[in-house]
Amino acid sequence: MERINVGLIGFGTIGSGVVKLLEDSRGIIRERVGAEIVLKKIADKDTERDRGVEIESGLLTQDVSEIIDDPEIAIVIELVGGVDAARKFILKAIEKGKSVVTANKALLSACGGEIFEKAVKSGVDVGFEASVGGGIPVIKALKEGLVANRINSIYGIINGTANYILSEMTHEGGRFEDILKKAQKKGYAEADPTYDVEGIDTAHKLAIMINIAYGASIKYEDIYTEGINGVTSLDIAFAKEFGYRIKLLAIAKEVNGRIEARVHPTMIPADSMLAAVEGVYNAVHISGSAVGSVILYGKGAGMMPTASAVVADVIDICRNIKKGISGRVSPLSYLQENISSIDLREIEDLEVPYYIRFSAIDKPGVLSKISGVLGNHNISISSVIQKDRKIGEVVPVVIVTHQAKERELLAALNDIDKMDVILEKTKYLRIEEKLGSDS
Amino acid sequence: MERINVGLIGFGTIGSGVVKLLEDSRGIIRERVGAEIVLKKIADKDTERDRGVEIESGLLTQDVSEIIDDPEIAIVIELVGGVDAARKFILKAIEKGKSVVTANKALLSACGGEIFEKAVKSGVDVGFEASVGGGIPVIKALKEGLVANRINSIYGIINGTANYILSEMTHEGGRFEDILKKAQKKGYAEADPTYDVEGIDTAHKLAIMINIAYGASIKYEDIYTEGINGVTSLDIAFAKEFGYRIKLLAIAKEVNGRIEARVHPTMIPADSMLAAVEGVYNAVHISGSAVGSVILYGKGAGMMPTASAVVADVIDICRNIKKGISGRVSPLSYLQENISSIDLREIEDLEVPYYIRFSAIDKPGVLSKISGVLGNHNISISSVIQKDRKIGEVVPVVIVTHQAKERELLAALNDIDKMDVILEKTKYLRIEEKLGSDS
Repeated sequence: MERINVGLIGFGTIGSGVVKLLEDSRGIIRERVGAEIVLKKIADKDTERDRGVEIESGLLTQDVSEIIDDPEIAIVIELVGGVDAARKFILKAIEKGKSVVTANKALLSACGGEIFEKAVKSGVDVGFEASVGGGIPVIKALKEGLVANRINSIYGIINGTANYILSEMTHEGGRFEDILKKAQKKGYAEADPTYDVEGIDTAHKLAIMINIAYGASIKYEDIYTEGINGVTSLDIAFAKEFGYRIKLLAIAKEVNGRIEARVHPTMIPADSMLAAVEGVYNAVHISGSAVGSVILYGKGAGMMPTASAVVADVIDICRNIKKGISGRVSPLSYLQENISSIDLREIEDLEVPYYIRFSAIDKPGVLSKISGVLGNHNISISSVIQKDRKIGEVVPVVIVTHQAKERELLAALNDIDKMDVILEKTKYLRIEEKLGSDS
Repeated sequence: MERINVGLIGFGTIGSGVVKLLEDSRGIIRERVGAEIVLKKIADKDTERDRGVEIESGLLTQDVSEIIDDPEIAIVIELVGGVDAARKFILKAIEKGKSVVTANKALLSACGGEIFEKAVKSGVDVGFEASVGGGIPVIKALKEGLVANRINSIYGIINGTANYILSEMTHEGGRFEDILKKAQKKGYAEADPTYDVEGIDTAHKLAIMINIAYGASIKYEDIYTEGINGVTSLDIAFAKEFGYRIKLLAIAKEVNGRIEARVHPTMIPADSMLAAVEGVYNAVHISGSAVGSVILYGKGAGMMPTASAVVADVIDICRNIKKGISGRVSPLSYLQENISSIDLREIEDLEVPYYIRFSAIDKPGVLSKISGVLGNHNISISSVIQKDRKIGEVVPVVIVTHQAKERELLAALNDIDKMDVILEKTKYLRIEEKLGSDS
């Protein structure tokens, strides 16, 4: 039986999962692929720590070059994370004619273009299923399963930490800060949760999906990104009252031939499938020109789900190696020469319904003033909630609008926030009434 | 640009969708695959009918051999349906060295083994993504995306007609027969709905998924199959009361090293993701050893969703042709020599909670008698509902049991149905409390 040697760089949680899964699935891989995948070397700075998985002595090294310079190693799995070192390792491995598997969304959304181009030139493959949605085969769906479709839209819940926090705020109640602490205790949020709660991790993943869907070369900085750190329990409660749930969504849409890309807390109908995605689960709702709506759901993170995606990529590449080929499917499922830079739509051009929460002094005529300004900016009101009447005190006035232009909304709020009766900066959230083409 | 010739056998609804999609996605295919897929010939008995898609004159023939014998045609798409003719066409095409794409689940679940073996020997590929779940890339997920996993269980809502009828019964109310008629009027059910309502179509698709998941060669007749024609609005109502929904499920599970395979109306928790799959939508819940629960959701039928899967397969094969290879992934994702026949678990060995509805004369002591017999057969009761007390008349007595053995249940019901106070054959439905490993 053919033996294919693999080297692993990065022996952290996911790395340990990969080592375990390569061992566990040895039999399955033999039966399904007809090959023996041999983990020949693991490189990690820390060669002492016990990861709870057994490895042969001599397998672990601190020296990455023992992997990259080993001509017998055909596939390098990069799981160090971060951008600079990972980029260097991957580019070197590609130079040496090795295929690469990575889960590194930060890297790919920053310099995927460089890596993919080099891989195609060197005649090697790059697998990155694990970079979006953990074990959910969403990259493969975009690159292969839905290949005959133009992608009309993508809506993703692709950050488990943010979704866990919003789910807890919705069902258990509580403030963002407290639930974040709980999430950190449970291991659902990292000590530094910035990437997760500020939407950056979600933007990384969205950039990757957009580049596949549209043969593009955008970077995550190009994407309008807003996190969940501003979502209050008041907004969560009002969302429920209007029949919505608040989710941190990654959104990509083709609108009049241009691509809209944004990450922000979004109100979606409470009875939509995505609203039912709770806790650390992920889901991606893809609308294709032929297929209509497809939703892929599962665990978007964690040791074994992520390892499942990494090893699937390794097996994919092994199947190529067994046939003596590479580049059967281009990294982004578009031939490299057809990758083009695209201009994303400005967020000010967005046109959706909005949820707006004013902190206003409760006195007669306030609502009339607010709605007057909105009207001047062509924003029409769908419904209003003003509870807890306390004449002379500050109360939340909540308005849901019909479809409106973000540019107009911002201008209106600028005017409104100057009013004497408005005591805090007005808060707004975007609403998506329809997810996908037909749901 | 490389041109790859394709022949289509069967110009019905799906065939027309494929013709349309090949035309619509010409640009995408060029950009993604770097090839021109040319539809060289279409064979259909009916060369007159207008399908609403434009084709060049001379493209349509009644003579299948114009496709099968044309050495320039590399891929044959079989969409005639049925078993005998389709089998003949496919085997001949394979003999002639052509790869094949089919949506024919009846055929594959009856003689997939023969077709796959021949394809491997002849060095061609067989694509059948469209045979299960329409446009949802579930076959690719099982064969590739989740390849590193042992499959613990599969739960599928994979017949849109049956799901539409059950959804309507649940939300709109009404009798099975009336809603079936409505479904037929809307085009959601065929004139002869046997395959759909009796669960046969679901069993076809389950057989295909099992053969991929376990490298097996079972046929659909091996699967215990029960349709939805016996589901009454009374059962639908009681299900709701107990916090369940009734769905026609395809179930495969590994239990103590053996595979359990069954198709039947099933009560599942109302708050599970599968319970939210309404109307003609399909969903497949796969539990893998590493990945945990993954759910794939979308349109399981219809012209364009099915065409999306067919053309994805065609493109997959084109990507192989461009690289000069075939058989990169075996038809069932197991090497042909590792396909083994498996003995499915007997339905009598099943152990699940049951919903049991007795038609009993309402008189004191009836419940005690019934529960006595159940107790004698080691069946313990979780809850009981007996409504509409009408002494001396027939009332439904509904019992939900704890986990019980089907063999014991059948023996108990056999005893109970002999009682004087029981006026109709007792009805039971199986309950699945937990779908997947972790949901």
